Amino acid sequence: MKFSPLVDELIQSLKYLPGVGPKSAQRMAFQLLERDRKAGQSLASALSSAMSDVGHCQACRTFTEETLCPICASHKRGNSEVICVVETPADVLAIEAGGHFSGRYFVLLGHLSPLDGVGPEELGLSLLEAHLASGEVSELILATNPTVEGDATAHFIADMAKGHQVSVSRIAHGVPVGGELEYVDSTTLALSFNGRLPL
Amino acid sequence: MKFSPLVDELIQSLKYLPGVGPKSAQRMAFQLLERDRKAGQSLASALSSAMSDVGHCQACRTFTEETLCPICASHKRGNSEVICVVETPADVLAIEAGGHFSGRYFVLLGHLSPLDGVGPEELGLSLLEAHLASGEVSELILATNPTVEGDATAHFIADMAKGHQVSVSRIAHGVPVGGELEYVDSTTLALSFNGRLPL
Ligand SMILES: [Zn+2]
Ligand SMILES: [Zn+2]
Repeated sequence: MKFSPLVDELIQSLKYLPGVGPKSAQRMAFQLLERDRKAGQSLASALSSAMSDVGHCQACRTFTEETLCPICASHKRGNSEVICVVETPADVLAIEAGGHFSGRYFVLLGHLSPLDGVGPEELGLSLLEAHLASGEVSELILATNPTVEGDATAHFIADMAKGHQVSVSRIAHGVPVGGELEYVDSTTLALSFNGRLPL
Repeated sequence: MKFSPLVDELIQSLKYLPGVGPKSAQRMAFQLLERDRKAGQSLASALSSAMSDVGHCQACRTFTEETLCPICASHKRGNSEVICVVETPADVLAIEAGGHFSGRYFVLLGHLSPLDGVGPEELGLSLLEAHLASGEVSELILATNPTVEGDATAHFIADMAKGHQVSVSRIAHGVPVGGELEYVDSTTLALSFNGRLPL
């Protein structure tokens, strides 16, 4: 025995959301129906507008419904000579929360993954190369994730940048500040030894 | 620095969903934008239809966009002399999954909770009493959760039923005390039906 069609469809659709299984989808549906129909309607219209109107920033590829995202549109940051390359818009947010980077970003929306059909074109690397070729970029900071794919992507981009007058660096990976050495995995520890700096 | 307005609004709206914090909301938004806009649109329209069209079954109060839910609309079950009273539609689903109950339901959509303003009227108890007064009900099985509020609600309904020719029972505490009905396995649920005791 199932619920009525509209309720069933709502539960099924909520399962499209990452991390939402059948039980959570039910809970979400009943909570919205029982207590918060206005919130449900707001979510419906936010989803609908975002799905149809949000595209990519023409400069950095992050999601935006404008031609340029807020960072690229800002005079000071959008013209910065320093570009930080990240995998996702969430990485931008994490770095912005730190407040120590004042350049602009390039958002790959993924990493090289040939088996999944993700190559340089899918990551917008020709757009990135156009930025490098413009002569308006002096430094490229590669902040892809410290994973096999993130490393491969960083090396690919570093190679690509060699033909241009740009200094290329990769953010350091090591023991997180406040973290305890004994709980850090061995790969991270190895990276932190390799990246040691003179005191 | 935030995302652009539509993206921000989508992330904010996803946080209305129970159990979804800021990080999950971001993940959900980016995954839909990146990989599954069609799913996002389906969710939007399912939400919108459900929020505006789903009401309550006129017999059992569960959620449905029809006058009667599928169970109440079925000739055999909708006319059963046995009514099982549960707190939520998810409880109906859990009992149905067990497959051992063939009567109809009454869904309270909550439990008595005077501090939250939930009294007999909010639980539709006058509708339940009308069922009892109709003379078409011979047995009432109280399957509210084995919590303080669920017990209080069961006792309140048992008192209410005293004026009518109805045998009243409470499902046995095979259901773990403090637990929630919808998470109990079907065998335990079956035992708790068999072991029901008169109140
Ligand atoms: Zn941008
Ligand atoms: Zn019904």
